[in-house]
Amino acid sequence: MELDVDLSALRSALEADDRDGYLIDDDASDADQRYVSGFTAPDPYQTLVTADGVHLLVSGLEYGRAVTESSADTVTRRSTYDYQKLVAEHGGHEAKSRMLAAFLEDHGVESIAVPRTFPTGTADGLRERGVDVAVESEGIVEDIRATKTAWELEQIRATQRANEAAMAAAEELLATAEVRDDGTLVHGGEALTSERVTEEIEITLLRHGCGLDDTIVACGADGADPHDRGSGPLKADELIVVDIFPRDKETGYFADMTRTFARGDPGEEARRRYAVTEDAYEAALEAVEAGVTGADVHGAACDVLEDAGYATLRSDPSTETGFIHSTGHGVGLDIHEQPSVSPAGGELLAGHVISIEPGLYDPEIGGVRIEDLIVVTEDGYENLTDYRVGLEPTAE
Amino acid sequence: MELDVDLSALRSALEADDRDGYLIDDDASDADQRYVSGFTAPDPYQTLVTADGVHLLVSGLEYGRAVTESSADTVTRRSTYDYQKLVAEHGGHEAKSRMLAAFLEDHGVESIAVPRTFPTGTADGLRERGVDVAVESEGIVEDIRATKTAWELEQIRATQRANEAAMAAAEELLATAEVRDDGTLVHGGEALTSERVTEEIEITLLRHGCGLDDTIVACGADGADPHDRGSGPLKADELIVVDIFPRDKETGYFADMTRTFARGDPGEEARRRYAVTEDAYEAALEAVEAGVTGADVHGAACDVLEDAGYATLRSDPSTETGFIHSTGHGVGLDIHEQPSVSPAGGELLAGHVISIEPGLYDPEIGGVRIEDLIVVTEDGYENLTDYRVGLEPTAE
Repeated sequence: MELDVDLSALRSALEADDRDGYLIDDDASDADQRYVSGFTAPDPYQTLVTADGVHLLVSGLEYGRAVTESSADTVTRRSTYDYQKLVAEHGGHEAKSRMLAAFLEDHGVESIAVPRTFPTGTADGLRERGVDVAVESEGIVEDIRATKTAWELEQIRATQRANEAAMAAAEELLATAEVRDDGTLVHGGEALTSERVTEEIEITLLRHGCGLDDTIVACGADGADPHDRGSGPLKADELIVVDIFPRDKETGYFADMTRTFARGDPGEEARRRYAVTEDAYEAALEAVEAGVTGADVHGAACDVLEDAGYATLRSDPSTETGFIHSTGHGVGLDIHEQPSVSPAGGELLAGHVISIEPGLYDPEIGGVRIEDLIVVTEDGYENLTDYRVGLEPTAE
Repeated sequence: MELDVDLSALRSALEADDRDGYLIDDDASDADQRYVSGFTAPDPYQTLVTADGVHLLVSGLEYGRAVTESSADTVTRRSTYDYQKLVAEHGGHEAKSRMLAAFLEDHGVESIAVPRTFPTGTADGLRERGVDVAVESEGIVEDIRATKTAWELEQIRATQRANEAAMAAAEELLATAEVRDDGTLVHGGEALTSERVTEEIEITLLRHGCGLDDTIVACGADGADPHDRGSGPLKADELIVVDIFPRDKETGYFADMTRTFARGDPGEEARRRYAVTEDAYEAALEAVEAGVTGADVHGAACDVLEDAGYATLRSDPSTETGFIHSTGHGVGLDIHEQPSVSPAGGELLAGHVISIEPGLYDPEIGGVRIEDLIVVTEDGYENLTDYRVGLEPTAE
């Protein structure tokens, strides 16, 4: 198994809580299930972790692939429990409870821990059938996932390589655009819009085997809302935030990077904000090493931004301008996962992959954000991002 | 509000069960929440339906957009409940329970119904705080969603237009490929692979504002596994299944279509299977009208296939060849939603959007599947798909 998952922390927790197993009932959009099962399918399936193995329950359609591709020790198909007959007799809801209760019984499991996101319908159905169901609220699997194996790091690096190609394609469009008298950017005779740059990013990622749900190419006031994807014509003398978070279609691993550009002159305050954000980004990077907390790293970024006179959520929890999000987050099979680089961020461990992405926002000025993806090491970090930091876009 | 949602069936159910509200705790990947709230966000948020309105609870980052874009009657931000302070004091799990309990209290809600997929962690947390939580196991919101409004039909039509363009691009590649002596298809001097056709499909969809997670371009034995996406060189004299299910990036509405092609001669049995599948597809379409059940329509397809001598899951529940899936499924904000066109399929209503997609599978022969997307009407159906059915690929 390439992924080479170590579930011993989960098994220890099960033993400590006197639980026979850990059950996930979700589809492959649940990163924990994908990680634990080594399997992905379009429809829901179930993964049971016991002391002696990992056990999958899948539809007949998925059975062959699950046997070949998953990392599970056993794979059972639903028809073993006459699932279709149960559905016809009892409806889908009760059929599922009955099937799962039988599946657990076959594995000698009477008490289970489940993730917080475990469906209440399934939990209540199993409880009615005498299974003892307790929520594992610590997020142990997400904690295990936070520390990447060597294989996982390779996959994340590969996605970030694709991301760099996409960022370069976007930057080249910005760099080679002409500026009309009204300040709008024009490329190949047509207005250069957020949508056009986004399309170029997406096509570049596709050619590298990656996809994405969203990209941010946000100009001016759009960029001052960190969740605004941006739209319409891009303009000179304005800040343009480009944030790309692609996912490799095959492996499922994400990467993440942000750069902020401006053609022409965005003004003195915008340039100052860029410089201060870059200082905060460097201070946060400097603070990273195994043993410090995500809160420490977030604090390092806040220190720089507050010292320069900008509000942060630390200095003013209700501010809507300044630094209004966390410094970073874990990246892996989820785009946002553990560990957190925020006031709530716990200890960073070697092998944690995190983004470092301070920013400053104000609708009057626009947005600035600079983001790299790094892996924490014993004595610092290794940057997984190989992309120049600079406000002025350049071609190649 | 464009979507124009009618939640009266949900409110009646709440009243009948003596529940004060219906609570969803999920992210925008939950179609029910997107539908009920008219809102989509990258991070989890909560939607509460009461007798007097729809109420959102969102992070500060989403607040402005939620006020502007959502269809909710009220929008509350988490900071109203000092969420960050609660996280710092009690950890994320308990903080969320406390915040939600306070949010419910503010709306005078003491007892809630929740969807089956509601997180057990949240349900148990609220129960510990005295909230009466019961699972709504009927899937009322999914039932409401199954009947499309005029606006929704327009969105699905638009996605299917993009899908037709993508299918045409794929078919053109197959039609204009040359056949090498070893039977492999070649295009522009390079091997025509499943991956290359998939890329062409994806780029075409991107240019139409649509994206997709998966596409199936499966040749020969690959096509005999309905969930295999296909890979490697495409060959003449083999069946090639092309199944495309894109989603409009803006509206979130899916479409779905499958065609099966063959260059050269796939053999007599393959041609017979194509003809029988086309007959089953026509029989299923013919059976559709408001008032019949999804099971009836599925039965019409099974009749044709069984009469022609092929196994179905109806004639042999354990078969791994023949017709090994349902005849169709609802399509909307989810790619698989209500109603079901399967042995479990209930009554079809005017406005239901369903796929009709019988198929025949055998690793020795390959796969055949023909799929259109239709909307059920009072006296039949309207086909939302405008694409020729034919085994031989043609350009334009």
